Amino acid sequence: MAVQVDTKVEAIRAQLPAVQSTVYLNTGTNGPLPRSVHQAMSELALEEFETGRINMAGWMKKAELKPKARALLASAFRVQPSEIALTQLTTEGMNVLIHGIDWQRGDEAIITNLEHPGGQLPLYVVARRAGVQLRLADLGIGDGDVAGKIERLITRRTRAVVLSHLAWNTGALLPLKEIVDVCRRHGVLVLVDAAQSAGSVDLDLHDLDPDGYAMPGQKWLCGPEGTGSLYIREDRLGWFQQTYVNYGSVLYGSTDDVGGFFTPNAGAARFDRIATYFPLIAGQIAAMEWLVNDVGLPWAYDRISRLGKLCHDTLTNIDGVTVITPRDRMAGLVSFNVAGITPDALVTALSDRGITTRTIPHPACVRVSTGFYNTEEEIERLGAAIEEIMRDHANAGS
Amino acid sequence: MAVQVDTKVEAIRAQLPAVQSTVYLNTGTNGPLPRSVHQAMSELALEEFETGRINMAGWMKKAELKPKARALLASAFRVQPSEIALTQLTTEGMNVLIHGIDWQRGDEAIITNLEHPGGQLPLYVVARRAGVQLRLADLGIGDGDVAGKIERLITRRTRAVVLSHLAWNTGALLPLKEIVDVCRRHGVLVLVDAAQSAGSVDLDLHDLDPDGYAMPGQKWLCGPEGTGSLYIREDRLGWFQQTYVNYGSVLYGSTDDVGGFFTPNAGAARFDRIATYFPLIAGQIAAMEWLVNDVGLPWAYDRISRLGKLCHDTLTNIDGVTVITPRDRMAGLVSFNVAGITPDALVTALSDRGITTRTIPHPACVRVSTGFYNTEEEIERLGAAIEEIMRDHANAGS
Repeated sequence: MAVQVDTKVEAIRAQLPAVQSTVYLNTGTNGPLPRSVHQAMSELALEEFETGRINMAGWMKKAELKPKARALLASAFRVQPSEIALTQLTTEGMNVLIHGIDWQRGDEAIITNLEHPGGQLPLYVVARRAGVQLRLADLGIGDGDVAGKIERLITRRTRAVVLSHLAWNTGALLPLKEIVDVCRRHGVLVLVDAAQSAGSVDLDLHDLDPDGYAMPGQKWLCGPEGTGSLYIREDRLGWFQQTYVNYGSVLYGSTDDVGGFFTPNAGAARFDRIATYFPLIAGQIAAMEWLVNDVGLPWAYDRISRLGKLCHDTLTNIDGVTVITPRDRMAGLVSFNVAGITPDALVTALSDRGITTRTIPHPACVRVSTGFYNTEEEIERLGAAIEEIMRDHANAGS
Repeated sequence: MAVQVDTKVEAIRAQLPAVQSTVYLNTGTNGPLPRSVHQAMSELALEEFETGRINMAGWMKKAELKPKARALLASAFRVQPSEIALTQLTTEGMNVLIHGIDWQRGDEAIITNLEHPGGQLPLYVVARRAGVQLRLADLGIGDGDVAGKIERLITRRTRAVVLSHLAWNTGALLPLKEIVDVCRRHGVLVLVDAAQSAGSVDLDLHDLDPDGYAMPGQKWLCGPEGTGSLYIREDRLGWFQQTYVNYGSVLYGSTDDVGGFFTPNAGAARFDRIATYFPLIAGQIAAMEWLVNDVGLPWAYDRISRLGKLCHDTLTNIDGVTVITPRDRMAGLVSFNVAGITPDALVTALSDRGITTRTIPHPACVRVSTGFYNTEEEIERLGAAIEEIMRDHANAGS
C-alpha cells in the first residue's frame, strides 16, 4: 500500500517539473504547473501566433473554453455552472463581491484580523468611498469561538462579514458553516476569501452556503496565474450589482443606448473576468481535468491534510520551534517560528538548503504549504534542516 | 524608394506569420503577433513551468517587467511613466475611469452615439447604481461640428463626457483637442476610449490633454490579448478614486487594519491591473520594442493612414459601394456597405476569397482595418474581390 502511494506520488511529481528543483513548500503562493497545463497553454498560444486571432475557426474553438471551465469548477465544488463566475484571482472575486453591494452611508461591515489584502483592500475602498464603518473581529489565531466573536460585533447596520475560510497567515481553517448560520440569522452577508481553501479542502459550497466564495486558480488548483473563480448561489445573484463590465457581462442585444438600460448576462457569468487571454482558460481547464482525472480531488484533499498534520507534528517536536497553526483546525498550511531566528533569516537559510517556504508579515512567521505532491521525506528534510539551522545559529552565537 | 518600402514591409511581414495566411484586414479587432512577442511570452512561460513561480530569482526578474512596460508606453505617447497604468484592455481602463468618479445622484454624463460597449456599459452601470442621468450626443458618423454638438448638451450637472478618439464603427477620428478645450471650459471630464487610436494615430497625450485615455495592447500595438494601458495626467490622479484594488494598488506598509486606512500607490500604478500573468507583460514589452526599434512608430502611423486613404479611395471608386468613414477624419479604419449585399454576406464572401474583415452592428456595415504591414496589393485585392462578389451577386439575382 505504501508502495502504491509512493508510485502514485512519483507519477504525479513527474508531471510537475517545478517540484523537482526544490523542496516545494509554497503552494500557498503559487502551485506547480502540471505538464498538461503548460502544454494546453503553449498549443493555443502557438495557434494564435501562427493563424492569428481574428479567424472564425479560432473563435468557435475558444468560445467553448469558458463553458467548459465553468462546468469543471462547478462540478468540483458541487454547485451549478450558472453559479460560477470565471475570475482572474481571488482578489478579483472579493472586489466583485464587495463592490457589488450598494452600500449606504453608515452601513457596517465586519472584517477579521486574519485577512489578506485581497479581502481587506476592496473593503477599505468602500469604507472610504461609501462611508462604511468597519468593525474588526479579533479572532486571535483563528481558534476558539470564532462564530461567537463575529456575532458579538453584529448590529442592525451590519451588512456583510469579510473573512477567509482558511487563514493565509495562521493556517487556521475557520468554522465557515457555523459562521454562515450565525450571520444568516442576522441577515448579514458572508463574503469569503477562499484563496487557501479552494483545492486544499473538500468543499461542498451548497452545504457551506456562503453568499460569495472567491477562489484562485493558481495555488492549490495548480492552474495559471490569472485564473480563478467566484461562487454565488443562483438565487442570490441579484444581491450583488455588477461593477466592472464588458460586452460579455450583459445579455447580447439587451442594451438601450438612449437611456443606458441593459440586462445582465444570465447566471454568475455576469461577473466573469472582463479581460481574457484565452490560453489561460485552456490552462485552467487542463489543471482541473488533471486534478479530477489523474490526481483525484478526494485523494489530494486527504493527502494535503495528512502531510499538513505530519508537518505540524514534525515542527512541534523540535525544541525551540513554536507552531502557530491550530492543529485541530488546519489543512495544508503550517505557520511557525524558531526562537532567536527571524522569519526572513529562516526562509533564507531554508532556501540555501533547497527548501522553498515563505515569510508572513502578521503574525511575523514562516509558512509552509504541504501540497499533495510533496513527500513525507520532504517534511523530514524540512525538520532536519531547521534543526541544522538552529545548531548553526547557536554555534555562531556562542 | 518604392523598392525600399517594399523591402521594409516584406521584412515586417516576415515577423508576422498571421498576415501570411490571410489578407489580414482586421487589426481593429486584434493585431497580428510579432515573432518576438510570441518568443518573449513562450520563454517566460517555459521558465515558470520548469523552475516554478515561487523562487526569488524569478520574482526579481519579473519585478522589472512592469516598470519597463510602463516606460515604453509612456515614451511612445510622450508622457511620464507615472502617468501610465498597466491595464488588461481598453474596457478595463474605461471601467477604472468611470467607476473612479464619485458620482452624486442627479449628476449627468454625456456619451456619444459612436461608442463601443467598453465605454457604454460601465457608464450604464453607474447610471443605474448611482442615479446618473445620461445624455446621448448624436454625432452622426462623426463628421461636422462634433465639439459643438457635445457642448450643447453640457449643463451644470454634467461631470464627464465618454467618447472614442477614433470611432470603432464609422472610423471617424474625432477632433479630441477641440472637444477637450470645450469640456475643460465647462469643468467637464473627458474620458476617452482609445481602442482604435492607440497605435494607429500619432499621439501626444499631454498636448491632446484628455482627463483619461484608455488604450488596448492587442490591436494596433500588436501585443497580447490581456494587455493595455491607461493614461491619467499626474496632477489629475486625485480626480479618480480607486475601485478594484489588490496589494499592489496601495503603498507598501501603508494600511491601518483597525480602521481601514490606506495610501494609494504612487502615480498611475495605483490603477494597475489587479491580476497579472507575467508572460503577458513580457509580450507587451516585446511588442512596444518591436514597434519602436524595428518598425518605427512614425513610419507605422504614416503608412496606416496612407493605406486607409487608399482603401477609402479604392472602395469609393466602386459603383454600388458606399463608404461611411469621413475621408478627412480617418486613420486606418474604413467602414462601408455594398448595395444589395448584407454585411454578414459580404464578410463571408470576402473570407471565402481569403480576405479577413468584420461586420459592425451600428451602423450595420463592413469594416476594414489597414495595418502598417498590409500592402497596396492587398487593398487592390480587396477592391477586386468586392467587384467580383458584386458581379456574382448580380448574376445570381438575374
